[in-house]
Amino acid sequence: MKKRIAVIGASGYTGVELTRLLVAHPDVELAVASSDRWVSESVEARTGAPASVRYLALAAALEAAVDPARGCEIVMLATPADASHELVPRLLAHGRRVIDLSGAYRLRDAAFYASHYALSHGHIGLLAEAVYGLPELFRARVGPARLVANPGCYATAVQLALAPLLALLDADSRIIVDAMSGVTGAGRKASEEFSFTEIAGDLRAYRVLRHQHEPEIEQGLAAVAGRSVDITFVPHLLPVARGILATCHAQLAPGISRDDVNAAYDRAYRGEAFVALAPGAEQVALHDVVGTNRCRIGWAVGARGELVAIAAIDNLVKGAAGQALQNLNLMLGLDEGAGLLGLRSFHP
Amino acid sequence: MKKRIAVIGASGYTGVELTRLLVAHPDVELAVASSDRWVSESVEARTGAPASVRYLALAAALEAAVDPARGCEIVMLATPADASHELVPRLLAHGRRVIDLSGAYRLRDAAFYASHYALSHGHIGLLAEAVYGLPELFRARVGPARLVANPGCYATAVQLALAPLLALLDADSRIIVDAMSGVTGAGRKASEEFSFTEIAGDLRAYRVLRHQHEPEIEQGLAAVAGRSVDITFVPHLLPVARGILATCHAQLAPGISRDDVNAAYDRAYRGEAFVALAPGAEQVALHDVVGTNRCRIGWAVGARGELVAIAAIDNLVKGAAGQALQNLNLMLGLDEGAGLLGLRSFHP
Amino acid sequence: MKKRIAVIGASGYTGVELTRLLVAHPDVELAVASSDRWVSESVEARTGAPASVRYLALAAALEAAVDPARGCEIVMLATPADASHELVPRLLAHGRRVIDLSGAYRLRDAAFYASHYALSHGHIGLLAEAVYGLPELFRARVGPARLVANPGCYATAVQLALAPLLALLDADSRIIVDAMSGVTGAGRKASEEFSFTEIAGDLRAYRVLRHQHEPEIEQGLAAVAGRSVDITFVPHLLPVARGILATCHAQLAPGISRDDVNAAYDRAYRGEAFVALAPGAEQVALHDVVGTNRCRIGWAVGARGELVAIAAIDNLVKGAAGQALQNLNLMLGLDEGAGLLGLRSFHP
Amino acid sequence: MKKRIAVIGASGYTGVELTRLLVAHPDVELAVASSDRWVSESVEARTGAPASVRYLALAAALEAAVDPARGCEIVMLATPADASHELVPRLLAHGRRVIDLSGAYRLRDAAFYASHYALSHGHIGLLAEAVYGLPELFRARVGPARLVANPGCYATAVQLALAPLLALLDADSRIIVDAMSGVTGAGRKASEEFSFTEIAGDLRAYRVLRHQHEPEIEQGLAAVAGRSVDITFVPHLLPVARGILATCHAQLAPGISRDDVNAAYDRAYRGEAFVALAPGAEQVALHDVVGTNRCRIGWAVGARGELVAIAAIDNLVKGAAGQALQNLNLMLGLDEGAGLLGLRSFHP
Repeated sequence: MKKRIAVIGASGYTGVELTRLLVAHPDVELAVASSDRWVSESVEARTGAPASVRYLALAAALEAAVDPARGCEIVMLATPADASHELVPRLLAHGRRVIDLSGAYRLRDAAFYASHYALSHGHIGLLAEAVYGLPELFRARVGPARLVANPGCYATAVQLALAPLLALLDADSRIIVDAMSGVTGAGRKASEEFSFTEIAGDLRAYRVLRHQHEPEIEQGLAAVAGRSVDITFVPHLLPVARGILATCHAQLAPGISRDDVNAAYDRAYRGEAFVALAPGAEQVALHDVVGTNRCRIGWAVGARGELVAIAAIDNLVKGAAGQALQNLNLMLGLDEGAGLLGLRSFHP
Repeated sequence: MKKRIAVIGASGYTGVELTRLLVAHPDVELAVASSDRWVSESVEARTGAPASVRYLALAAALEAAVDPARGCEIVMLATPADASHELVPRLLAHGRRVIDLSGAYRLRDAAFYASHYALSHGHIGLLAEAVYGLPELFRARVGPARLVANPGCYATAVQLALAPLLALLDADSRIIVDAMSGVTGAGRKASEEFSFTEIAGDLRAYRVLRHQHEPEIEQGLAAVAGRSVDITFVPHLLPVARGILATCHAQLAPGISRDDVNAAYDRAYRGEAFVALAPGAEQVALHDVVGTNRCRIGWAVGARGELVAIAAIDNLVKGAAGQALQNLNLMLGLDEGAGLLGLRSFHP
Repeated sequence: MKKRIAVIGASGYTGVELTRLLVAHPDVELAVASSDRWVSESVEARTGAPASVRYLALAAALEAAVDPARGCEIVMLATPADASHELVPRLLAHGRRVIDLSGAYRLRDAAFYASHYALSHGHIGLLAEAVYGLPELFRARVGPARLVANPGCYATAVQLALAPLLALLDADSRIIVDAMSGVTGAGRKASEEFSFTEIAGDLRAYRVLRHQHEPEIEQGLAAVAGRSVDITFVPHLLPVARGILATCHAQLAPGISRDDVNAAYDRAYRGEAFVALAPGAEQVALHDVVGTNRCRIGWAVGARGELVAIAAIDNLVKGAAGQALQNLNLMLGLDEGAGLLGLRSFHP
Repeated sequence: MKKRIAVIGASGYTGVELTRLLVAHPDVELAVASSDRWVSESVEARTGAPASVRYLALAAALEAAVDPARGCEIVMLATPADASHELVPRLLAHGRRVIDLSGAYRLRDAAFYASHYALSHGHIGLLAEAVYGLPELFRARVGPARLVANPGCYATAVQLALAPLLALLDADSRIIVDAMSGVTGAGRKASEEFSFTEIAGDLRAYRVLRHQHEPEIEQGLAAVAGRSVDITFVPHLLPVARGILATCHAQLAPGISRDDVNAAYDRAYRGEAFVALAPGAEQVALHDVVGTNRCRIGWAVGARGELVAIAAIDNLVKGAAGQALQNLNLMLGLDEGAGLLGLRSFHP
């Protein structure tokens, strides 16, 4: 019998992507979907996915999600961080397991919520409990988790690009990342700034040195490296709808060769269904991944030990809803790739 | 000495285009510019054009525009139709001449304002007085006008494509126009509907059979033809920032040949600086005109007398601000092409 | 056991789309794929679809396709018209059933091949035999066919938009269609004309009054109407990768109301899995269909009986590879929607 | 009397841009233009600029350019590097002054031509003589030069971003640059790789750690710094037609503050007509510069002395043809901004 899942916040771009993936998933059922924007509309009409439910308002959806008679095993939150911050403890208190796609429970150090999320975090115990759901790096902890914090889109790309190499890097040198994201990363919004006329033909950086994924990346890489890791992170807004490309620069430790790098990546990702190693840094493109749950990684090593590692993902899939499905599958004891392996690239 | 001009409503896409054109115009001076959005900011900082003025709030701008000491000869309104509807009589009452870029004074029959502009028109006498400023068709009336109604963007393209042929058409057959416009045609706005994600990769029709330029086109063509003209008009929203392409279908009267059509166009537009006749319907593209004040027109005639005439313009230039400059030049007795002939195509 | 299928010409945009659909199809197996461009490369590496075969050169692929030991039941040709023209009789002679995605066998009147395809057709008997594979209009004939001519992309959209209404139209008035297509419709090609710089921001018409889909549409609609049908067809090239929008104009016969039109569409398409009726002409957009096998149709009726019907499809799916899969399913006695119903929109 | 100028290689994107700028320049005259692609066509028809000449084939153009009777003072080469390599000494031998827009004479160390241009350089003496035409850094040398090597597009943006800061940087730390360019940077070409379908919605890096502008940047910055400078340079191909954004990372020397950085930029570029300092790194966008000869620069300084400097230019203007016009003006003793100050942004 199919596991029943609730989605709260189903009308953002991430929420719609998540809804479609859940509806197409062979082993789960979308039992509850909330959207204050689309209350009472049919999920099928809005997403094209053959779901039988209609959108509930938030309050009704929460009630349904925790109702024992409805039997929702897992509640997935595609809500903004401040909403997730409030909802997570309420859902856990009702015995629900939660996958939160916002940043509200990703960081262990609550100070970053003040500095990077304008949020005074009130549930510090849960920050310690939450499992950071990047399966390729922390898979074993996801299955039994009560609360999974689904990683950020940039953070996913950068950590997958760099984690296998941390032991090979000059520990004193800073890692520098320039990342470029499609505009769905900013969410569905009515804004002149994100209008077609303002975005088409343009490129600009934003939140330079102050993006909330910077501490998230540093925290994740430090957990892998067993030491602190220092990142300079500059995100850019790209005139495409979907996709992230992260170009990461680091300095190899003396004596480390390109072969060592190749071996480290191969060791780390051999057998990973959702990481694809490219023959080179130039063979990594948004078109390779958009529509899929794959992270594609390529790299180059310069004569002076400088490393360039480039990762591409679909920000809405591997960077959000698809990775949440990986986590869902792990939590439910399903095959990790269920509902994800058949996704096709949108590139013609 | 340079003529002093005021622009009211200078922060929309049309207003910015108009501002830049005026600042670059050799014989006029931008004396007043209003923008409630950008009050007190420098025009140069917002537009890149080396103007010395700062944006005034609407009330202050109106006061300045009518102040005899300021000596503004002409006030140009790039305001929405309902604002223009109110402002025009006030400005005329102060002795100012006005070019209104909105639709508020384009239609002679006030009934269309109720049906197509949701506007109960209160200045019917001015509808009779206003001169429709499409110089290629009605040049002689523009020069002495007190009030010029600057044509709509679609209306400009369609009338220029069809006016020379009206005498050659089967008067009983309907003219059908499918027109496609870039999104600046909708103005500067914060709207999910016009966000990059919603527009890129998309195409859709809007206001099918109910666009406000339909009666405007019918009125203009009827004035040329000396009989009523019946148009079916379907506008489409295109994933480009600027440009209109109008594909117009009509039936030639029996016995009319392609040579007759060629001759009619040649006769109509020989010597026109801003109409370019293309060798065929397939040689008319947005890239030919974007950035310029040109209307490019090409046509094909089928074996059964079916005519296809295609016109392309930049909706912000020949479709709005550039044409307004033509009218300004005519009203001031300047060379009609002043400030317009040197505009270059944006196409690389 | 899965039916074995060969694809000849697998590296064009249509060929890749077809390959992906076949690989994901639950009841068939991609047994042979040819591409002179990608000989010996793995299909999986090129398409992302988990196929086990490698591309064969044309000659080897043809041999494999007709080899009794390989047991290919149906050969699908995604080759240019001149190649299909030659290949079809050879494949039929070997007892293979064929679905041809080119135009080589769509038209019954061979004269059109000279005028519209620069092709002197040498297999006129097969033109009479070929079944035009537009299932929603001619489903019954597809199942038993030996040779199915898969419809053109524009032709699919226009016929689906107009076929249900033919009995309601003024038979004397011409139908006018302006259609806009994404650039994948032109195929994969190295050409300055289709470079990003030349296409982005542009729109232009092409093959005005001389596109090869015009006789195809007239033939199909005549077959439905039982009388000749006269179409004026103007295709336009759109700055998007995928998708066709066809805006169709016709004149309703006297006394025909909007309700009659609604009823005709409802009668024609009730129960059709791949036709979606929109609430209005303005609710039909490329975003609704890109990535899916759906044709979405909306319409408006003017006060003078003028009808505007707008249809949108994905040119590579319902306009090519997806429709070919419908035909394949019908020929093999499978569910018509197999491998097609789960396709999701690419729109975020 | 206007100075007469010849342009060789006038049909690439750079050549067309240069042609338009020359035609609009108040003090020079386009006397000769070559294009093997457009021989005998009118320059006006191809560029929209009111020139009176027609394109000559290369041989005829060279003859005209050196003909004393024609009086061309300066020959501008918008040819590929291998063509410029051959043409420059021939033109100099005839007493012509030359501005070469290719890379053929930019590098002093001929070894880089083998490694980065696949060119065995045969005119090493000219490498020593050529003046690197980046006026903001090396203005004094341009005026009297016989041969000016016009800088590369990326190289212009990166050098302008970093040159003022070299004395403030930790000399031991590597500079890292990720730069993103629109596709006109690759030139006009018939190529599947640059087709709309392959570029739209995509982003990828290319020539990672091996782009020919890397040694050019290192040479230029070393000349300013008076020491060697080590750059890691990764260019990316962006789905826009025009524009470059270069995001540059460097480490400030201990004790250097943000105020020191601000002061250095202000000192370097106060009075420069074509460098615009932005209030921050996030206020630098392609839209600010496309169509103009401006380089816009913004920066941020992190808590640990990490510097991010972002520069944007139009690759065809300040990155090629516009900068060539600056050099031309300097060589002719004209005002450096002649023909350049009035250029307007293409952003609506």
